[in-house]
Amino acid sequence: MPHHTHLTVRGYHLDVYRHVNNARYLEFLEEARWDYFDHNGLAEFFRNSRYGMAIVHIDIHYRRAALLGDKLDIETAFAQADARQAVINQIIRKTGSPHILAEARVSFMLIDQTTGRAIRFPTELQQAIAAHIPSNPAEPAS
Amino acid sequence: MPHHTHLTVRGYHLDVYRHVNNARYLEFLEEARWDYFDHNGLAEFFRNSRYGMAIVHIDIHYRRAALLGDKLDIETAFAQADARQAVINQIIRKTGSPHILAEARVSFMLIDQTTGRAIRFPTELQQAIAAHIPSNPAEPAS
Amino acid sequence: MPHHTHLTVRGYHLDVYRHVNNARYLEFLEEARWDYFDHNGLAEFFRNSRYGMAIVHIDIHYRRAALLGDKLDIETAFAQADARQAVINQIIRKTGSPHILAEARVSFMLIDQTTGRAIRFPTELQQAIAAHIPSNPAEPAS
Amino acid sequence: MPHHTHLTVRGYHLDVYRHVNNARYLEFLEEARWDYFDHNGLAEFFRNSRYGMAIVHIDIHYRRAALLGDKLDIETAFAQADARQAVINQIIRKTGSPHILAEARVSFMLIDQTTGRAIRFPTELQQAIAAHIPSNPAEPAS
Repeated sequence: MPHHTHLTVRGYHLDVYRHVNNARYLEFLEEARWDYFDHNGLAEFFRNSRYGMAIVHIDIHYRRAALLGDKLDIETAFAQADARQAVINQIIRKTGSPHILAEARVSFMLIDQTTGRAIRFPTELQQAIAAHIPSNPAEPAS
Repeated sequence: MPHHTHLTVRGYHLDVYRHVNNARYLEFLEEARWDYFDHNGLAEFFRNSRYGMAIVHIDIHYRRAALLGDKLDIETAFAQADARQAVINQIIRKTGSPHILAEARVSFMLIDQTTGRAIRFPTELQQAIAAHIPSNPAEPAS
Repeated sequence: MPHHTHLTVRGYHLDVYRHVNNARYLEFLEEARWDYFDHNGLAEFFRNSRYGMAIVHIDIHYRRAALLGDKLDIETAFAQADARQAVINQIIRKTGSPHILAEARVSFMLIDQTTGRAIRFPTELQQAIAAHIPSNPAEPAS
Repeated sequence: MPHHTHLTVRGYHLDVYRHVNNARYLEFLEEARWDYFDHNGLAEFFRNSRYGMAIVHIDIHYRRAALLGDKLDIETAFAQADARQAVINQIIRKTGSPHILAEARVSFMLIDQTTGRAIRFPTELQQAIAAHIPSNPAEPAS
């Protein structure tokens, strides 16, 4: 079941074209991932471990402009995970609207913060993530 | 011939993991694109027109962490363009190093700022871009 | 009566020292001001006018560090207003804590967006603001 | 002798009013301070120590708007220092112009990153800073 995060577009999110700047969307997505992790117990896992998430790939399509005052609904769901990498799908819409403003695939690995090196996902984390992957995930269009 | 932009990683570019945050890379890439446009005359074109660039797609791979004090070299080059869309390839390395920290394909359309609608590239812009596409472009690995 | 806005400190808010970066606090304060304006009708006033707010002065004291996962409570209240300038006091605490993390005085003027020039506050705006100034405002310590 | 840092205003620095957002100025100031520290040896001091700088107070006046494409000149100079706190004055102008866009007083303390606590400035740091304080410093107007 995807998780939904809500936020409102403010003046400082906009750029010279008065729409949300492309880099800000990545902060919106990160906000939504932390919010999702707060709700499924993963934030606690990371706080109590020496592990961190290293984003290795983001593929983001910007489909419509988000403007001042728009209320956004960000849908976040795990799409897949193996021992080395997990993928999260995120879709941004205006609240109550079916139209997609932006959609992204975000892939991350696990790093050991004491060594800075990528490591395999611990079994408990892999299982926790697997439990959150919808059986029939909605894929962002490529 | 690709264009090179140089910047240094500062404390405010880093996040909880003490490496450059994924969203900051997009600001680095935007900085490098404006810098490139300043040098090839496109910035002037945009300043004197009612056109703006709307990013429609970014595909970015984060390969190695950038850390406090790292001096970065961002290589920017047009990869392709047609009447509706242009693609820019950007590669971030530490200055003097062959290793890639991040590489991205950035696609944009042209919008008319008075209507907010996507429009076809004017012939002069299409030609100006075509003149800047290397005959044998280095593609980011997928 | 001061208005309260709540947000959570995320990984991308932190910098090399792993506390919230000084510039991010200003985004938190702007977020809280828009949120306040949404609740007291001023956001609507600005959306329906050609006026914008130009910040002319910020005096901010950083008293304690905000860290990953901290839940913040931002208190926002008008402190004074005359025909040319209004002042807003904002105080950031951890939710439920009496300790102040940061406190700021934010002064703004009104600009006419068509001319870019500062203008006097329209009477209706001056009155709307005056109605929101507590009779006995808590001043940030200097 | 004040230190000068140069940067150009880009599309992502602007906000809904198409001038540089108030929070961005603080990133410009931080950029200039790191740049200054790179040139006077202080950056090396911080990299080789367990000390960090904690900003405790910023007093910033925004006097004129900075717009897309503006080339900025940021002047940075130590104003005072004692065993507990140092103050840096920073002034932002358009390059070649006498007019001030923004000016700030930035005060910081030293923290021990292993304990997170404020500490007294080591004598060598206090002396290094004192050597950089102009005998007749230009003060930002209050």
